[in-house]
Amino acid sequence: MSNRKSREIRLKSRPAGMPALANFELAEVDLPAPGPGQVLVRNAYMTVDPYMRGRMMDRRSYVPPFQIGEALTGGAVGQVVEAGAGAPFKVGDHVMSMAGWREAFVSTGMEMMQKIEPIPGVGIQSYLGTFGMPGLTAYAGLLRIGEFKPEDSVFVSAASGAVGTVVCQIAKAKGSKRVVGSAGSDEKCKFLRDIGCDEAINYKTCGDLNAAVAKAFPDGIGVYFDNVGGTHLEAAIGNMRQFGRLAECGMIEQYNATEPPPGPRNMIMTVGLSLTIKGFIVSNHYDMLGDFMRDMGAWTKAGQMKWRETIYDGVERAPEAFIGLFKGENFGKMLVRVGPDKAV
Amino acid sequence: MSNRKSREIRLKSRPAGMPALANFELAEVDLPAPGPGQVLVRNAYMTVDPYMRGRMMDRRSYVPPFQIGEALTGGAVGQVVEAGAGAPFKVGDHVMSMAGWREAFVSTGMEMMQKIEPIPGVGIQSYLGTFGMPGLTAYAGLLRIGEFKPEDSVFVSAASGAVGTVVCQIAKAKGSKRVVGSAGSDEKCKFLRDIGCDEAINYKTCGDLNAAVAKAFPDGIGVYFDNVGGTHLEAAIGNMRQFGRLAECGMIEQYNATEPPPGPRNMIMTVGLSLTIKGFIVSNHYDMLGDFMRDMGAWTKAGQMKWRETIYDGVERAPEAFIGLFKGENFGKMLVRVGPDKAV
Repeated sequence: MSNRKSREIRLKSRPAGMPALANFELAEVDLPAPGPGQVLVRNAYMTVDPYMRGRMMDRRSYVPPFQIGEALTGGAVGQVVEAGAGAPFKVGDHVMSMAGWREAFVSTGMEMMQKIEPIPGVGIQSYLGTFGMPGLTAYAGLLRIGEFKPEDSVFVSAASGAVGTVVCQIAKAKGSKRVVGSAGSDEKCKFLRDIGCDEAINYKTCGDLNAAVAKAFPDGIGVYFDNVGGTHLEAAIGNMRQFGRLAECGMIEQYNATEPPPGPRNMIMTVGLSLTIKGFIVSNHYDMLGDFMRDMGAWTKAGQMKWRETIYDGVERAPEAFIGLFKGENFGKMLVRVGPDKAV
Repeated sequence: MSNRKSREIRLKSRPAGMPALANFELAEVDLPAPGPGQVLVRNAYMTVDPYMRGRMMDRRSYVPPFQIGEALTGGAVGQVVEAGAGAPFKVGDHVMSMAGWREAFVSTGMEMMQKIEPIPGVGIQSYLGTFGMPGLTAYAGLLRIGEFKPEDSVFVSAASGAVGTVVCQIAKAKGSKRVVGSAGSDEKCKFLRDIGCDEAINYKTCGDLNAAVAKAFPDGIGVYFDNVGGTHLEAAIGNMRQFGRLAECGMIEQYNATEPPPGPRNMIMTVGLSLTIKGFIVSNHYDMLGDFMRDMGAWTKAGQMKWRETIYDGVERAPEAFIGLFKGENFGKMLVRVGPDKAV
């Protein structure tokens, strides 16, 4: 008989400001045997993403809040290890689901499970990053929301993160002559130049960010891909070209703010320069998934798509990984390995 | 021989903050006789518009700054009173031009003159308001930039102004079930209800604007037409529906600011609600002029388009009229009568 124990992370209390380890608790559960139509999945990797911070608050949003005392949820990849009669997956199948933050689970039909095929030369965990939601976020945000055209210069904040890395490389692969990313360390900036960025701004050491952005874009910015908000957004608005577009993907600078942060003081420039500031969430753009997988496959094969991962080991370290996101401790996609890469 | 004297208003100094009468000076000039191809035009009305405040600053913008010691320019309507040989207009023609802030001028080819036909039952000055640039601004801003659809609820700031009045009525004419305008007096709010607004908010007496907007839009705002910026913009963002659109036409609240005003503190909502904030200037939308004139003519004939004008008499009062714009002293379109309605 299989081991049917699983450890999971539950929300113990709602964070005020920056999340702390005390907001989370580890619990062990005994899973039932999968019934008819059910499968037992052992997760290999789970993802921690900035958007999860929003779900830890008790407020109206585009996804319902996490509940106190319950296991958190989020993207995960794993493998089916037991299957009940008539189950839609068989033992050994690789699956992606929303049943992250735990080592294993028995499917109930609510986990949004889908079978995935390992991509040659690419770890299965890339379905949580470059080939998953962050990658599609980059793709939809730059191409559809930002309406990127090859003649556009592109500015990307949090550019060495899971989304930003892909944005920079799509822009270059599609012919942009000037792509500049910002990141929080010289090492990350070096990586940005390594993956093809024409320039990289270390926002922690550059001094006045507005001046640094102005210097990096003497002819102005065509598309700004915003993962950060706050001072980055203001600096971008202040340096856009006429008819420029700002794709609002996230504002990590303020997810833990306990008071409303100051807004961009130069919104007036949206009028004179005919700017478009457009927010989006990736789930409204799943229709692009086919094109995305095709293009990403080709770019990866051609060596035009590189990425980094930061992997924490053990489900018990998931809270630490999550908190690390807001401190810039990840380099590229932040993941937690919660089981063996090959679970069977 | 015709009288060829003209009085004009020149920029004496650049305003710091709210413009003052001392920033302007009145001068009298003797015009030459119109040469071959030229005409002498006597203006009947000139317009003062908020955007002119921007041109009084010495900065890069979408139009070059006004020059110290020179007559200001802006929209005007008048009539040709003398015509040189081979001139493209004849004596008696009504013309619209950018040679406002003066009683008369001899054409040089730089005035963007166009012949206009008086509209039955409507004063010729409406070419400076409802049937002119402000009207087209409303039309393009609501329909193209705001992508208005009949199911959209609409919030309009500075709603009793030249642009806002038209926005409100187009939205109603096109079938919106809920149009709410804000204005700065109970009298203006009464007017808004008279022209069909479902509700009107007196932003000076309503207390917390965000709460007032929330109450006026229990189901959220579909399109916000922004003439004001600042607290209005923040209140609108805070009450938009998913996929809502914000047409950024102007931000009169801050045109005279001497320091960058606080920006909207809730920009994060653009992400979760997939909002689009889009700035525009009317000159990029002149291709809509034909549709605009056709629709406006029909709506006016059907009694669906009403408007107010505030008229100051005498070119010497133009600075006063202009300054009054920023104090809300206009009710509807602010105009200056600089000559007889019928000049010939």
